[in-house]
Amino acid sequence: MVEINKERLWERLQYVGGIGADPRGGISRFAWTPAYKEACEVLMGWMREAGLTVRMDTVGNIYGRLEGQENLPPLLTGSHFDTVPMGGKFDGLAGVMAALEVLTAMAEQGEKPKRPVEMIAFVNEEASQFLGGHFGSKAICGMLPEDYALTSVDRATGITMKQAMLDFGMGLEPDHFEKSYIRERDYFAFIELHIEQGCYLLHENLPMAVVTDIAGIKQFYITLNGVSAHAGGMAMEDRHDAMAAAAAIACEVERLALESGSTTRGTVGYIQARPAEHNIVANQAIVPVDFREKEDGLWQKLYDDLMEFVEKQCQARGLTYSVKSTIDTSPVHCDKRLVELIHQCTEQEKIPHKYMVSYPAHDAMQMGRLYPMGMIFLRSSNEGVSHCPDEYTTPEDMADGTRVLLRTIEHLSKQDKL
Amino acid sequence: MVEINKERLWERLQYVGGIGADPRGGISRFAWTPAYKEACEVLMGWMREAGLTVRMDTVGNIYGRLEGQENLPPLLTGSHFDTVPMGGKFDGLAGVMAALEVLTAMAEQGEKPKRPVEMIAFVNEEASQFLGGHFGSKAICGMLPEDYALTSVDRATGITMKQAMLDFGMGLEPDHFEKSYIRERDYFAFIELHIEQGCYLLHENLPMAVVTDIAGIKQFYITLNGVSAHAGGMAMEDRHDAMAAAAAIACEVERLALESGSTTRGTVGYIQARPAEHNIVANQAIVPVDFREKEDGLWQKLYDDLMEFVEKQCQARGLTYSVKSTIDTSPVHCDKRLVELIHQCTEQEKIPHKYMVSYPAHDAMQMGRLYPMGMIFLRSSNEGVSHCPDEYTTPEDMADGTRVLLRTIEHLSKQDKL
Repeated sequence: MVEINKERLWERLQYVGGIGADPRGGISRFAWTPAYKEACEVLMGWMREAGLTVRMDTVGNIYGRLEGQENLPPLLTGSHFDTVPMGGKFDGLAGVMAALEVLTAMAEQGEKPKRPVEMIAFVNEEASQFLGGHFGSKAICGMLPEDYALTSVDRATGITMKQAMLDFGMGLEPDHFEKSYIRERDYFAFIELHIEQGCYLLHENLPMAVVTDIAGIKQFYITLNGVSAHAGGMAMEDRHDAMAAAAAIACEVERLALESGSTTRGTVGYIQARPAEHNIVANQAIVPVDFREKEDGLWQKLYDDLMEFVEKQCQARGLTYSVKSTIDTSPVHCDKRLVELIHQCTEQEKIPHKYMVSYPAHDAMQMGRLYPMGMIFLRSSNEGVSHCPDEYTTPEDMADGTRVLLRTIEHLSKQDKL
Repeated sequence: MVEINKERLWERLQYVGGIGADPRGGISRFAWTPAYKEACEVLMGWMREAGLTVRMDTVGNIYGRLEGQENLPPLLTGSHFDTVPMGGKFDGLAGVMAALEVLTAMAEQGEKPKRPVEMIAFVNEEASQFLGGHFGSKAICGMLPEDYALTSVDRATGITMKQAMLDFGMGLEPDHFEKSYIRERDYFAFIELHIEQGCYLLHENLPMAVVTDIAGIKQFYITLNGVSAHAGGMAMEDRHDAMAAAAAIACEVERLALESGSTTRGTVGYIQARPAEHNIVANQAIVPVDFREKEDGLWQKLYDDLMEFVEKQCQARGLTYSVKSTIDTSPVHCDKRLVELIHQCTEQEKIPHKYMVSYPAHDAMQMGRLYPMGMIFLRSSNEGVSHCPDEYTTPEDMADGTRVLLRTIEHLSKQDKL
């Protein structure tokens, strides 16, 4: 039975995770930067050293392949290789390094899987420079327009994504995303290991979780238009108060989430009112809404129910409104057979665990629309913080999770079908 | 019977109202500026021309006295002589010019009132340069600390109020507010004519109103402190969401105002949340509240009831909070005998009218704490706009209101007691 090298896993993660150190603190390893290139070269060196067949696609995703005995669609595993600004060493990287360790251990211990096993390091998952996010997985799944690299601009530098990709070199072709496309028949299944980015496993004293679903997200901005008036001069019944409607809508978002019967999350992080004076009734208010829900029907119903409430509020108060949607991603469900298999491998390794829904989005969301998909969550220590320098997962939890990933891959790579 | 000169009233109002024209539009006639001085000299010239005894007190209020047959406490009438930035020609000035016309007409038509009648042009009612407001009336009522002129600073220029007063000259003594004090025995009653600054008289097709009360104001900021969290990562039941509490409090402000049983006005003009990201649960939110209510007990109860709600919200959500009060002015009630007298004079002049509560504050608020006080509101045309260049009251409404003021003063100046 193949065994991982826990020390090598940890040392490599620490080493490559330190590339892109930000003088302000933490790690800023953004896609297509010199630091990113350095990290790619280190990673690809280790992959070649393990005997994998290594390639970078035309957008910057790195693939490494361990050949199988038969020419079957390979199993794919991995996560993203970039960070948020001033981020940590685990978000994304944990899954890339676990995949590398699994393939390295299999190769060095002479494991000849029936079907090939590939790892992937997705590029530009975070929206650190360019708005959007999940770029690498969206690009290969054919979800981005042809001129995307030309129209995306680095918020800080003003450089286009196309220029950043050309400057990066390594054979990237920003005008040819299609050369990176993967098709439904290309892979057998996809598995991503990722840190939880929350405190639930920590608080329940569990090192890992088997993910069952990735919640759908609806993110939209409701703009309410009323009439401004003096707080003293205008009677309550004659107002067209956009701020009062906004507050009622924020309360309704919370109520809908609390009473949905599911584990819905509904958030209004702020309200932007105008003219924003303490003694003036607001003539405009913008309410940003973020709904996350795993059940397909409910995910849409939350939005519909809120819109009905908004409509009523506006009618009652004599307001007009408009809605701008920024994220509208339906829930993705992990393959039930993969959920069961990961669960069994976890039992086999005697690792306490639970089932969890992922409320943050992941590259697995895109992959899950093409292939049977599974996800493993690892405990986030340090109160579950993420996207910051204090992000931490212990060497033991890294090893436990990687071992479960190994067992799952060993099993799947022998299967003809799920 | 004394009659006013409608044309003179209108022409003088237009003339002096045009002093302080702002190149950006409207009138910016701020206290103690060269434009203000020019306007004071014009006003004092007309007052002297009418035969009044004219003086400026040590803070800049202008008094004009028409002697009476007996040495009784005089009747006082007037309003403020300054404007908001880019303001209009009527707010404040209407009451000053009405007072001038009444005293001029009485003097030139040989009226010898039993008790003296004085007019006043209050300085610096608006908070155009220096925070606060109602300076002239607060100063003479002894409501300001000794070092007020030294500690108040012009927001735009950084110049202290003391320096502005010294630069103005005309004998002002910024270190001797006490020389401007008036005492309870000094006057018989105070009457202020002012524009409505609202659209109610316009919509009801009435040229004027008899004010019954000036609403008390409670203006305060509630700061709520929670814990920030990712909109995806944190379950609803584990949140300490400052923004959600703020929204609930804003709804409660509106509910308390609507259901008070009075004509309460309750306003939340905006909510200031932090970090104000659409996908982050806010860890702080500030809710500015503005309550206006004419009934003394209710005015306090609204605040107490809201605080009880805030306390419950914070307990339920695991938040802390603090409250900072910026205005806490109890209601002031017009003297019932003056309300009745003004009503009778209005009937006598056959001017359609109604009773109204003033929700904006006025100099009459301070004066009403020392003397029996009455107020006359004139219709604001142009949709009731105020504090802007489009502020307008017709020559006919100006004349009608001034005529009622004249009749009221004629009557009162003959009385030994109210």
